[in-house]
Amino acid sequence: MEKDPMLRLRVFDLNCWAICYLSKRRQERISLIGDQLCREGFDLVLLQEIWSERDYSNLKAKLGGCCPFSHYFRSGVIGSGLCVFSKFPILDTLLYQYSLNGYPYMLQHGDWFCGKSVGLVIVRIAEITVNIYVTHLHAEYSREKDAYLPHRVVQAWELAQFIRHTAKAADVVLLGGDLNMHPGDVGIRLLRSWTGLRDAFTEAQRFEGCEDGCTLIPSNCFTVKSELQSFPLGIRIDYILYKAVSSFTVECEELRTTTGTVPGLDIPYSDHEAVMAVLCIQRRQQTASVTIDAAMPALLEVLSEARTEVCMGLLAARQQRYSSGRMAVLAMLLLLLQAVGVLGMLGGVAAAQPFPALSVSLLAFFALAILLFAAGLHLFHSIEVKMLQGTEEQMEMAMRGLQEQPLHH
Amino acid sequence: MEKDPMLRLRVFDLNCWAICYLSKRRQERISLIGDQLCREGFDLVLLQEIWSERDYSNLKAKLGGCCPFSHYFRSGVIGSGLCVFSKFPILDTLLYQYSLNGYPYMLQHGDWFCGKSVGLVIVRIAEITVNIYVTHLHAEYSREKDAYLPHRVVQAWELAQFIRHTAKAADVVLLGGDLNMHPGDVGIRLLRSWTGLRDAFTEAQRFEGCEDGCTLIPSNCFTVKSELQSFPLGIRIDYILYKAVSSFTVECEELRTTTGTVPGLDIPYSDHEAVMAVLCIQRRQQTASVTIDAAMPALLEVLSEARTEVCMGLLAARQQRYSSGRMAVLAMLLLLLQAVGVLGMLGGVAAAQPFPALSVSLLAFFALAILLFAAGLHLFHSIEVKMLQGTEEQMEMAMRGLQEQPLHH
Repeated sequence: MEKDPMLRLRVFDLNCWAICYLSKRRQERISLIGDQLCREGFDLVLLQEIWSERDYSNLKAKLGGCCPFSHYFRSGVIGSGLCVFSKFPILDTLLYQYSLNGYPYMLQHGDWFCGKSVGLVIVRIAEITVNIYVTHLHAEYSREKDAYLPHRVVQAWELAQFIRHTAKAADVVLLGGDLNMHPGDVGIRLLRSWTGLRDAFTEAQRFEGCEDGCTLIPSNCFTVKSELQSFPLGIRIDYILYKAVSSFTVECEELRTTTGTVPGLDIPYSDHEAVMAVLCIQRRQQTASVTIDAAMPALLEVLSEARTEVCMGLLAARQQRYSSGRMAVLAMLLLLLQAVGVLGMLGGVAAAQPFPALSVSLLAFFALAILLFAAGLHLFHSIEVKMLQGTEEQMEMAMRGLQEQPLHH
Repeated sequence: MEKDPMLRLRVFDLNCWAICYLSKRRQERISLIGDQLCREGFDLVLLQEIWSERDYSNLKAKLGGCCPFSHYFRSGVIGSGLCVFSKFPILDTLLYQYSLNGYPYMLQHGDWFCGKSVGLVIVRIAEITVNIYVTHLHAEYSREKDAYLPHRVVQAWELAQFIRHTAKAADVVLLGGDLNMHPGDVGIRLLRSWTGLRDAFTEAQRFEGCEDGCTLIPSNCFTVKSELQSFPLGIRIDYILYKAVSSFTVECEELRTTTGTVPGLDIPYSDHEAVMAVLCIQRRQQTASVTIDAAMPALLEVLSEARTEVCMGLLAARQQRYSSGRMAVLAMLLLLLQAVGVLGMLGGVAAAQPFPALSVSLLAFFALAILLFAAGLHLFHSIEVKMLQGTEEQMEMAMRGLQEQPLHH
């Protein structure tokens, strides 16, 4: 082996916003993305929101030359939307579906149906095992009144735990995706401090692209302007994060983002900007000792903050479980009352029918619909309560463990 | 460190059959199990079907002396039923919920509601990192016509993949649980060959207990005799499996099962028999090379067999998705027809009402119920198809990988 060889990895990450029938100029954009990827020849391409398998197949066909290896992660009703293209053979894959992901009845926020997950792809490049994670967390629809915050914190926790547990044999860990969190949000601080992952944007030696590294910008013609009202520069929610184990180092030599409209054309690739990093991986001369203990109090603080969010979510979920249970019981009582009335009528107790048959039937119809709906809701919120409780306990255990012994990433 | 120290681990595994309101003499049995565990003082206790958190708390209180550390895994509506008690501090935990687990409408087979999962608990015993997995796979309700076989094969695959990916830093891997598979079934062969786990029953130097190591036996007063008709000795579906990485060895010194009724009492601990193993863990003098390649053709064969099962499941799931979709469309047409009829009546086109209002409303009621049911079913089977497809692809990739390069456990 050559002395001190340097591996340069070129990584591309983009939320492609390729929702069939809903996303504007989808096929045109997918085709543009494919062309761009072919032209630039990245080593690793991490895509989100590729919901249609046909779009994936088209990209696969186009990228056959530069990235012959790929994997599409399936989950949920529509799929996970996640896929990875690689210049290097893929050795193994694993998908982990987050236990909480919004509410099925929030149809306008389709997240629940997407089966949001984290996908893992393992590649081996020149004797270096690289674990590549791609994910897409639950969207934030309102920053002021973010009903999904507890779910997103749970997802960030599960993502961190999944990475910690599956990356133990990896030399280099790479995470790309739309995390739907601003850089200072509790979920991302939790993820970063609990896994030791570093943010390519803050670490990059050179940066080129949107100001502050934003990936959702007002000048992109597909972004919803009202969502960016309080952020005139835009927001940064798409990330490339990385770390190496002690015998390797990773440095981000360069980070770039696209800046809205594709040069020479009238549309951007997506409503998000792409993030492109050049990472330099090198074997370390001497194995450095892990110096995490300095950050211990900060980690404990983040954990406690995250736990508070989960507890708030737990309170809300318990309340909703109770309300939906009560609604189901009331609907059942109404149905029973009606059944008694009808039976009484048939039995001749009340000779004259007090209400018209049509309204009685409509009412029964209505009561049954409510019963089914409320029962479903109750079931759903019961699961939510369990999951939030479970996460809260795990966080507590982590905090206890940290207080007793130092952290080993 | 002492030269060549030997670590003796005493492991207890039991499906406790502790379903509130349904399981017979539940509290009495849980109390008996607690007493027995206290008396024998196991190092690790892996329990399944502890559905009520109160039962868990009672056990936790009772075992505080001998197994002060414990974890209860939450998932699904009712929970996962899984918990672990340990004499050694628990460093970390992770839960992975299987992507397929029966059908929600099979209410009589409540598996879907249980959120069947695999739980991981990491403990460190005398400088040895032990990854402990506890799980409970989907039940087999009919061996002749096993509609759940593809789901169970997917679970076995996901279990194997989860172990492979999370156990890379472990020195010793231990899996206990009710796998709901006979020793020769494709799922268990897949799990064993894909992970390299060894079966404590076949490896044990001493065995004591039910003939053939059976854990569901006719002489247990709680077992359903009709399920065991073709198996006069009973069946073995509860397992303790283990392996060590190359610098350690694990041997099973002794394996025991309970044999129905608790001595001196009139009831058994559960409808399953408990499995108890004594494992000896030792650091290896010289690191042995892994010799898996000899088993390669067998592994390929098992993978191909498992893939066939998944493909069969895929065919069935596609058929069901189609049927439920068609049913939903028909119900919608019926509703539309009725709506047109009612509108026509109200508009005075048909002056006389051809059908009584009650029957019209009942029919609408019926059509709506079918529509909702069929739509739900369609959604569910769409997920099922996705998941089976995903597993099939992963298996294919594994087979391709095996043919190209040797396996690294």
